[in-house]
Amino acid sequence: MLPVHVPDLDEISAAYAFTRRASVETPLIEADALARQCGAARVLVKAESLQRTGSFKFRGAYWRVSRLTPQEKQRGVVAYSSGNFAQGLAAAARMAGVSAKIVMPQDAPAAKRRGAEAHGAEIVSARHGDRPREEVAAGLARTIAAEEGRVLLHPFDDAVIVAGQAGAGLEAIEQMERLELPAPDLVYCCVGGGGLIGGVALAFHYLRPRTRVIAVEPEGYDGMGRSLDNAAITRVASGTATICDALQATAPGEAPFAAARRAGIGHVAVADAPVRAAMRLAFETLKLVLEPSGAVAIAALMQAEGSLAGQSVLCYATGGNITFDDFARIVSG
Amino acid sequence: MLPVHVPDLDEISAAYAFTRRASVETPLIEADALARQCGAARVLVKAESLQRTGSFKFRGAYWRVSRLTPQEKQRGVVAYSSGNFAQGLAAAARMAGVSAKIVMPQDAPAAKRRGAEAHGAEIVSARHGDRPREEVAAGLARTIAAEEGRVLLHPFDDAVIVAGQAGAGLEAIEQMERLELPAPDLVYCCVGGGGLIGGVALAFHYLRPRTRVIAVEPEGYDGMGRSLDNAAITRVASGTATICDALQATAPGEAPFAAARRAGIGHVAVADAPVRAAMRLAFETLKLVLEPSGAVAIAALMQAEGSLAGQSVLCYATGGNITFDDFARIVSG
Repeated sequence: MLPVHVPDLDEISAAYAFTRRASVETPLIEADALARQCGAARVLVKAESLQRTGSFKFRGAYWRVSRLTPQEKQRGVVAYSSGNFAQGLAAAARMAGVSAKIVMPQDAPAAKRRGAEAHGAEIVSARHGDRPREEVAAGLARTIAAEEGRVLLHPFDDAVIVAGQAGAGLEAIEQMERLELPAPDLVYCCVGGGGLIGGVALAFHYLRPRTRVIAVEPEGYDGMGRSLDNAAITRVASGTATICDALQATAPGEAPFAAARRAGIGHVAVADAPVRAAMRLAFETLKLVLEPSGAVAIAALMQAEGSLAGQSVLCYATGGNITFDDFARIVSG
Repeated sequence: MLPVHVPDLDEISAAYAFTRRASVETPLIEADALARQCGAARVLVKAESLQRTGSFKFRGAYWRVSRLTPQEKQRGVVAYSSGNFAQGLAAAARMAGVSAKIVMPQDAPAAKRRGAEAHGAEIVSARHGDRPREEVAAGLARTIAAEEGRVLLHPFDDAVIVAGQAGAGLEAIEQMERLELPAPDLVYCCVGGGGLIGGVALAFHYLRPRTRVIAVEPEGYDGMGRSLDNAAITRVASGTATICDALQATAPGEAPFAAARRAGIGHVAVADAPVRAAMRLAFETLKLVLEPSGAVAIAALMQAEGSLAGQSVLCYATGGNITFDDFARIVSG
């Protein structure tokens, strides 16, 4: 087997230089209330929920689509996604004039499906029943790619996607430099398949090597944590109930895992209850709408219980694609 | 009577150069769904709800406090506010080591009171009963200033405050320049006493004179609109019910009115119902938590009914200080 490619600093810098022309420079928000609650000296929240299409996924998708050859662009793309990559890819493909077909699990949130459709993608529902929903959707996407000649894009297991997501790290580093702030001691970042944390960890590894990056996963979907502990990709059982619909990958992708290993990161898992509390805290003190998956890194800080004393923390809030009614149900749950 | 001072370009630029060291560079968010709904070619939302202390008020307060003499800083400050200026001033005063006492009306939202206290200010409740709440609170603040020797700061009727709020305009102009976007055709901005729109209108007047700035007020509190129509400050009756707790000034301040007149602006008023709809739209499509007063400019766009065809619009979302429970009650109302 070939070793998996890990993007270098030039690659992630080139990706960011290109994608920033279309992406939102998402703000760093001073999170005083959160800092008080978790005992950290300072917490800055990088609000990727405000990224175009409501999550960081646009960065990687936009970069990936830009790397297609003219022939590939003509063939169109197909992908599977529980919703955030779907929306990011739909928008990126439309901006590049590329046809996009996206397989979504039947139980993907309606808001995410509507969002992807609004950005011009054709949506195909995958009925997974009792089977792992990610695998069923991936299988259907492969079939469509074969039958229609479309380029199959993976939502996270792709070094080009990892390089694109690294922009969320480079941008934060640049913003903190502009504010004359020292590098954070810690970075907390959620993990589904690992595309974001792979990129963010590389950015800090190359430019701020003393910063420690922590992967945050929902309990039961801690594939990155187990893989890091085992020094090999380790799959968790699917089917555990979680409110974090976007973080149900049962294992990290090879490309993100290689990036995370290269960078050297820690990990932690969180239950649903602190995620609900984190959504409310983000609403009331940060004025941010976060979906459950977008709030797990804040949840991890809230349950850190004193271990953050004196530390400066950068925390990623990664997605906000949720209806008001779903939000109200979840935070009151 | 002396003519009211209107800050020039040098003054607003100096204010922004100073305040940006402490303020959040709030993002410009591409509002595709809003643009589709109101028929505009493009809408960018300037999310001042993400400013330090949850509203644009921090900018003016931080600049105003920095202009105090050392003697004045020692005496401390007193002000009245329904809540957002209270929080902005509390934070700004604490950062400068200045004691702050703030009079808030008895019916100010609890979240705003707690916020101001958390930033270190001493809060005094004003019981207005059937009298205009702003006047009662202002009277109490004057009494405290006289008795305790504190410097009385006005939340908006102060050319220095207007100059500070202008940063919200200069920053948007700078961001759009960085994105190589042309100047917007229209700017929609909410008005309470007029501090923000006074500053924003001056910024565009000096640097983007072809952009038309529109003042948005709650129905019944359209003091700026009436004053512009009458070419003289005109007070509206207080007591009209509105969900926009931060926009209940019964007349614009002299300093903001002079700035608005110098810049030349239009105006419109909105009822509660579109404001509720705007809060939900901001939640679901912009991922922003907005209090009612912070959503009125979006509400004005939503009810513009075709008049925006082909126009590019910059829209200010100005505050997000609201509990989840209040938000849920209001958007479901």
